[in-house]
Amino acid sequence: MGQLLILHGPNLNLLGLREPGVYGRLTLAEINQKLEQAAAASNLSLRIYQSNHEGALIDHIHEARTWANGILINPGAYTHTSYALRDAIVAVGLPTVEVHLSNIHAREPFRHESKLAAACLGQISGFGWYSYILGLHALRQHLEA
Amino acid sequence: MGQLLILHGPNLNLLGLREPGVYGRLTLAEINQKLEQAAAASNLSLRIYQSNHEGALIDHIHEARTWANGILINPGAYTHTSYALRDAIVAVGLPTVEVHLSNIHAREPFRHESKLAAACLGQISGFGWYSYILGLHALRQHLEA
Amino acid sequence: MGQLLILHGPNLNLLGLREPGVYGRLTLAEINQKLEQAAAASNLSLRIYQSNHEGALIDHIHEARTWANGILINPGAYTHTSYALRDAIVAVGLPTVEVHLSNIHAREPFRHESKLAAACLGQISGFGWYSYILGLHALRQHLEA
Amino acid sequence: MGQLLILHGPNLNLLGLREPGVYGRLTLAEINQKLEQAAAASNLSLRIYQSNHEGALIDHIHEARTWANGILINPGAYTHTSYALRDAIVAVGLPTVEVHLSNIHAREPFRHESKLAAACLGQISGFGWYSYILGLHALRQHLEA
Amino acid sequence: MGQLLILHGPNLNLLGLREPGVYGRLTLAEINQKLEQAAAASNLSLRIYQSNHEGALIDHIHEARTWANGILINPGAYTHTSYALRDAIVAVGLPTVEVHLSNIHAREPFRHESKLAAACLGQISGFGWYSYILGLHALRQHLEA
Amino acid sequence: MGQLLILHGPNLNLLGLREPGVYGRLTLAEINQKLEQAAAASNLSLRIYQSNHEGALIDHIHEARTWANGILINPGAYTHTSYALRDAIVAVGLPTVEVHLSNIHAREPFRHESKLAAACLGQISGFGWYSYILGLHALRQHLEA
Amino acid sequence: MGQLLILHGPNLNLLGLREPGVYGRLTLAEINQKLEQAAAASNLSLRIYQSNHEGALIDHIHEARTWANGILINPGAYTHTSYALRDAIVAVGLPTVEVHLSNIHAREPFRHESKLAAACLGQISGFGWYSYILGLHALRQHLEA
Amino acid sequence: MGQLLILHGPNLNLLGLREPGVYGRLTLAEINQKLEQAAAASNLSLRIYQSNHEGALIDHIHEARTWANGILINPGAYTHTSYALRDAIVAVGLPTVEVHLSNIHAREPFRHESKLAAACLGQISGFGWYSYILGLHALRQHLEA
Amino acid sequence: MGQLLILHGPNLNLLGLREPGVYGRLTLAEINQKLEQAAAASNLSLRIYQSNHEGALIDHIHEARTWANGILINPGAYTHTSYALRDAIVAVGLPTVEVHLSNIHAREPFRHESKLAAACLGQISGFGWYSYILGLHALRQHLEA
Amino acid sequence: MGQLLILHGPNLNLLGLREPGVYGRLTLAEINQKLEQAAAASNLSLRIYQSNHEGALIDHIHEARTWANGILINPGAYTHTSYALRDAIVAVGLPTVEVHLSNIHAREPFRHESKLAAACLGQISGFGWYSYILGLHALRQHLEA
Amino acid sequence: MGQLLILHGPNLNLLGLREPGVYGRLTLAEINQKLEQAAAASNLSLRIYQSNHEGALIDHIHEARTWANGILINPGAYTHTSYALRDAIVAVGLPTVEVHLSNIHAREPFRHESKLAAACLGQISGFGWYSYILGLHALRQHLEA
Amino acid sequence: MGQLLILHGPNLNLLGLREPGVYGRLTLAEINQKLEQAAAASNLSLRIYQSNHEGALIDHIHEARTWANGILINPGAYTHTSYALRDAIVAVGLPTVEVHLSNIHAREPFRHESKLAAACLGQISGFGWYSYILGLHALRQHLEA
Repeated sequence: MGQLLILHGPNLNLLGLREPGVYGRLTLAEINQKLEQAAAASNLSLRIYQSNHEGALIDHIHEARTWANGILINPGAYTHTSYALRDAIVAVGLPTVEVHLSNIHAREPFRHESKLAAACLGQISGFGWYSYILGLHALRQHLEA
Repeated sequence: MGQLLILHGPNLNLLGLREPGVYGRLTLAEINQKLEQAAAASNLSLRIYQSNHEGALIDHIHEARTWANGILINPGAYTHTSYALRDAIVAVGLPTVEVHLSNIHAREPFRHESKLAAACLGQISGFGWYSYILGLHALRQHLEA
Repeated sequence: MGQLLILHGPNLNLLGLREPGVYGRLTLAEINQKLEQAAAASNLSLRIYQSNHEGALIDHIHEARTWANGILINPGAYTHTSYALRDAIVAVGLPTVEVHLSNIHAREPFRHESKLAAACLGQISGFGWYSYILGLHALRQHLEA
Repeated sequence: MGQLLILHGPNLNLLGLREPGVYGRLTLAEINQKLEQAAAASNLSLRIYQSNHEGALIDHIHEARTWANGILINPGAYTHTSYALRDAIVAVGLPTVEVHLSNIHAREPFRHESKLAAACLGQISGFGWYSYILGLHALRQHLEA
Repeated sequence: MGQLLILHGPNLNLLGLREPGVYGRLTLAEINQKLEQAAAASNLSLRIYQSNHEGALIDHIHEARTWANGILINPGAYTHTSYALRDAIVAVGLPTVEVHLSNIHAREPFRHESKLAAACLGQISGFGWYSYILGLHALRQHLEA
Repeated sequence: MGQLLILHGPNLNLLGLREPGVYGRLTLAEINQKLEQAAAASNLSLRIYQSNHEGALIDHIHEARTWANGILINPGAYTHTSYALRDAIVAVGLPTVEVHLSNIHAREPFRHESKLAAACLGQISGFGWYSYILGLHALRQHLEA
Repeated sequence: MGQLLILHGPNLNLLGLREPGVYGRLTLAEINQKLEQAAAASNLSLRIYQSNHEGALIDHIHEARTWANGILINPGAYTHTSYALRDAIVAVGLPTVEVHLSNIHAREPFRHESKLAAACLGQISGFGWYSYILGLHALRQHLEA
Repeated sequence: MGQLLILHGPNLNLLGLREPGVYGRLTLAEINQKLEQAAAASNLSLRIYQSNHEGALIDHIHEARTWANGILINPGAYTHTSYALRDAIVAVGLPTVEVHLSNIHAREPFRHESKLAAACLGQISGFGWYSYILGLHALRQHLEA
Repeated sequence: MGQLLILHGPNLNLLGLREPGVYGRLTLAEINQKLEQAAAASNLSLRIYQSNHEGALIDHIHEARTWANGILINPGAYTHTSYALRDAIVAVGLPTVEVHLSNIHAREPFRHESKLAAACLGQISGFGWYSYILGLHALRQHLEA
Repeated sequence: MGQLLILHGPNLNLLGLREPGVYGRLTLAEINQKLEQAAAASNLSLRIYQSNHEGALIDHIHEARTWANGILINPGAYTHTSYALRDAIVAVGLPTVEVHLSNIHAREPFRHESKLAAACLGQISGFGWYSYILGLHALRQHLEA
Repeated sequence: MGQLLILHGPNLNLLGLREPGVYGRLTLAEINQKLEQAAAASNLSLRIYQSNHEGALIDHIHEARTWANGILINPGAYTHTSYALRDAIVAVGLPTVEVHLSNIHAREPFRHESKLAAACLGQISGFGWYSYILGLHALRQHLEA
Repeated sequence: MGQLLILHGPNLNLLGLREPGVYGRLTLAEINQKLEQAAAASNLSLRIYQSNHEGALIDHIHEARTWANGILINPGAYTHTSYALRDAIVAVGLPTVEVHLSNIHAREPFRHESKLAAACLGQISGFGWYSYILGLHALRQHLEA
């Protein structure tokens, strides 16, 4: 028990550079490091992947069927359009937590709705890089329960 | 630093009895106990309040101006209708985290939209009583940063 | 078997005075008297309560868990906005009948939709004070069946 | 005083066979028998008619002008589409009560809205075969008042 | 096993004459002949009926309860308005396939949505008279499975 | 040249009796007489038909293919729902004029839109019985041109 | 009795040149001539005015208060936007008929709705220049009645 | 003549502290003082009440039936949701003026629509504390006329 | 300090004649006289202009840049359509108050929304000719502050 | 004549594993085998391709220009979002049939609409793996005709 | 070949003064000078016209029929409301290019949609005064091709 | 200064073959050649890339951060769906111009709205291959200013 897939969606590779007022000043590498630390403290192991390609994200979700106990995903802008990602999460049947750096419910109306949320355990939004850590704890708690 | 208002909105006094398949089997008292434990571990002190009255929730938010460093709120069904609660949060200017036991984005469409979220730091939804614990950690992290 | 909560929502305390062309000329006391008579004839006992406060209506619904077999509610204008009342009805799990003096489906469009109806056994609308009597019979019939 | 037209709309001839979980286990003949008993007790006489044809329902409403004091109608699925039935009710000017076996406000959204309700005295929905009996009492009460 | 009701809805009696660019050049009689041939080859027997009357179509669906194993229906323009037909299909509980000569999803927006489809096994649209043959095969396959 | 089908839709048989403030005080027979006089003066012959059955109206439109040069139709409340009537008009390809006694564009919103108008030469609305006479002149003019 | 204002709205000065497939081949002068002939035959006198300026059309409607018995207006594209023209018609209180050359109900959706129609006796649409003649007859008939 | 109820809705007790850029720098006490001065100059006497409870606001409106000649209300965020307040105003039948500190028509879309305005004499919005003074003058003028 | 442009939009030249039940019995000249009196009492000078032409209203707003300190405008029916007037107000940057004789929020839905309000200080609606006087006071107060 | 591209969209590689209650128990390999058998019986040859990448599906459609006579596509969740796939089908001009395993018209509302259907010959939905076989026959029939 | 009408719509006469952050710092005269230079370099001659009157803009478009080869128009705020301008462009049949100083697609939602664009060759938006120069080149290129 | 990324979105590789009536007869290679010529004349250097993969387009935008001064993009059908491309443009912060061959505002409604436009300097639509040249000039002008 305790292997998680961490999926970062489109444009998240530019974190730190990209609108720091909205998304924070940490780079993706730094967030990943914090995730690794938190995972280690919780006896979880992580595989981390970032892609701007919707199809590649789906491929990784599929593959996780064979090795992972849960998924932590920040779907980026695909949050608001991708029924294909939603179907992928339902298809593999792994507990999945959706996280967002910014508070999507306080931004443009099109960002308020997630096409994936209905397929996830829950959603955490608005706490910067700490949204990921909270998501990790939520998954750990779910796996323990 | 470290005094928080915990606000439980309408019908949450019936937790444990009310649709346990949706909201979980813990009573509100048990959740409050878990919150107190988590707060103690984080050197935070809590004042906890539940009401079915929108106006009473607003009154408590106002009063928190004088003593609290942050607010953790589960607005219950007022989430989807109360611009007055939203204005109260903006008016007092305290960092506020919105939490939900169930994944509101996976339920009836009217539950997908929060009228309060735009006034909050962020939203956590779907992890049962653990949503509160995650919200507590999110507030603590925000106050430390 | 046979104890019912009768709940009158906002502005119904002004019945008889308030737009008699729409709501009829009986006062709330007179309607309550007719309800008591009908209840006595059916071997039912009633507790009757009116409030303009959404929260107070919720409190009474909660309390009914401990003593009532059913609820007859005219939610007044909260019919069209209160998801909190709907959740309260679902939470206590008592059979509930929604009644309206006027035919809400023949008035302004915002009055056509009830946020509570999905949590009730059924809805009776348009028969003046007699809507309450019909609602009482509907509850009685349900309890007997 | 006291002759009523009872109109059953499309698919109601299959009652008892058709989705008993939704519509109950009584056949239309059994409901009609209950209606006749209730009418007899109230000194009312009934003419009962069922059709799957919108036009035939309109024809019967028209004809009722010449003999009836009121109409009790369950328009079935025509409830949600038939402005022609609505116009027929307005045209003949007879007091009309709309009834539904199931609680239409708790089913698919398209069933929430009645195109006929604005032309009726009121609407009763959700009490199975007893909706008819309540509707009969509502009409009787209206004719007496 | 193997008796099917073939139902043709409004205006289909004019096939061949009616907008051949949209609906093709075969008459209804010719389509029926092709259906009979295909049915014979599959050991199915057919009863075929066309009507411009919504009520008559419902009557035939009801009657099919007593003799048929499945229904193949082209509801014509009632596709987009008739909840009564939908309820009829649900009421009789026979496997039903909806077919259309033209590709309704490529025409005016009001033709994109079928009020009946949710009550059917599936929908076949856009292949002219061959839509019927495909529908026959779909029903046969379903009955065999 | 010069044979017209006059079609009166649902509830028009009650003209004179039905809401005279909206539809005028002439009976359908009197309107038909005025139509016959106007037709005679224009060397046109008429066949006049009224039905409350959508299917019967479609049947008559179909039949007109074999003998009529044009159609004058007041579709009553089917104006706002019947795509089947629209398809019938397109299917027979006869020039058709839609008329209304009342000004449908000045009444309830649902009466503003005609599902048939796009299949007709034009629409005349609001002039009481004289709408029919204007419609007759419009058809005559069209046939002459 | 018998003086009418004929108002032609924007772009109608280009008739004959402008999209003859939609609006016909007659020039505005030719249509006016036909109107004058029809008016003379009905003992009516006309003042005819065309403008592309919404304000000028309103000015002419106002002025008509002092001399006209009725107004015949083709508001052109202002049909679909001008509440100011609608208010002008209501303000002067003269019987007004709205006419259109093309069948506005068969064109782009934005042309289906008239902002003026609710202030007019009625609307005639789709008969080319003859729409004006029919409108003249409708006004004459109204003034005589 | 001349006794007015001044009602302040939710969050207005925090005026001066709450978003001064939007609502101005005066406290509620200071606004009340200005109202008292203006009332004195106009020979009006005031009773002033603030509450965050929708029900309490309704209670005060009801009570005003017995002593007041008019109501000046700033419903705060209940402006946009409370049909119950609207019904209360209609029920007591007192002339009522709705005022807002900020220009609600220039803010978020949900603030553009008032659910109460249709029950009031009129609405004044956007002039800070002076909106109250203008509202007082509007009521005085109405009572004098 | 103290020169104001008073702008009256379309159809306001007919005041007193036009629907007095809605707009009151004073003529525009009488309203202007009352405005002059109120202005004189406040040491303000006025230039008053009425037009039915949207463009002329814009021209006058532009010209006011060179001489006025503020604008009082009743845009009539252009309130609900004219983004060009809104842009004109923003372009000249003068404080502007929007007034309405009738309570636009209590009339047809299309009158509830003002396209200009977002460019104005505020809006006053529903007090007949006194709306103008209130607007004058609002502007004076703004200029003094 | 007779070479077809079979395209399977996102998540279809998991067939058999993925929600068998919705999509059936056959794996994609088994469906492909059935397609090959049916193709062989019809003298058609197939190239079969699955991808979770929208771009890869487009690439394959483009490439089919050079060798295929038709396309059979199950676009999976891209059905509901991909205008790019629709444009690709139009661009290559090959006859295309859209198929779905489940009855998309009976599932969540977002699945009712296909962005691709307007570019296809037709759509077949709801017959499990047999939808593919029916689609193959539809294409064959089209190519033969 | 080569005579163009340049039309500037409402409020553009204030350029340079009006919101320079949105519309730039050049005056209309300076923009016109740049247009004349660019036209001279391309062997085109210009007639330039600005008006705040929708009707005057239409008049100039009509007049252009007699002398111009194309039209370059910045319709200002009429972009979003004027079907009359759209009809004028279609009526004269001259190639027309729509330009905007600001990026209308990045501003308020009501500015995203142009009612004229469907009647134009194309639209250029967002490049300040240079949008006009690009529009001139687009027209020149179109006339040469 | 002067290195630009030219991005062609989905299906543009088929230009010349694909619906030449809509998109013109030039191939993508020919358009690229014209772009290179125009760039050379303006002292700009180009890197040109086409992909049908949304993710690949995003990757190239990201990479442009390191070498380009601006981006010229024709997003094809992703224009109407891709918030991920919009976020990518905002993330890299390079001036970007959106171009379209056809006039998207004159086509199907879904093509009227661009999800990317709000992140771009501006949009040019409708001039065939020359839209690219105009876009190049717009970028050059922006970089010079």
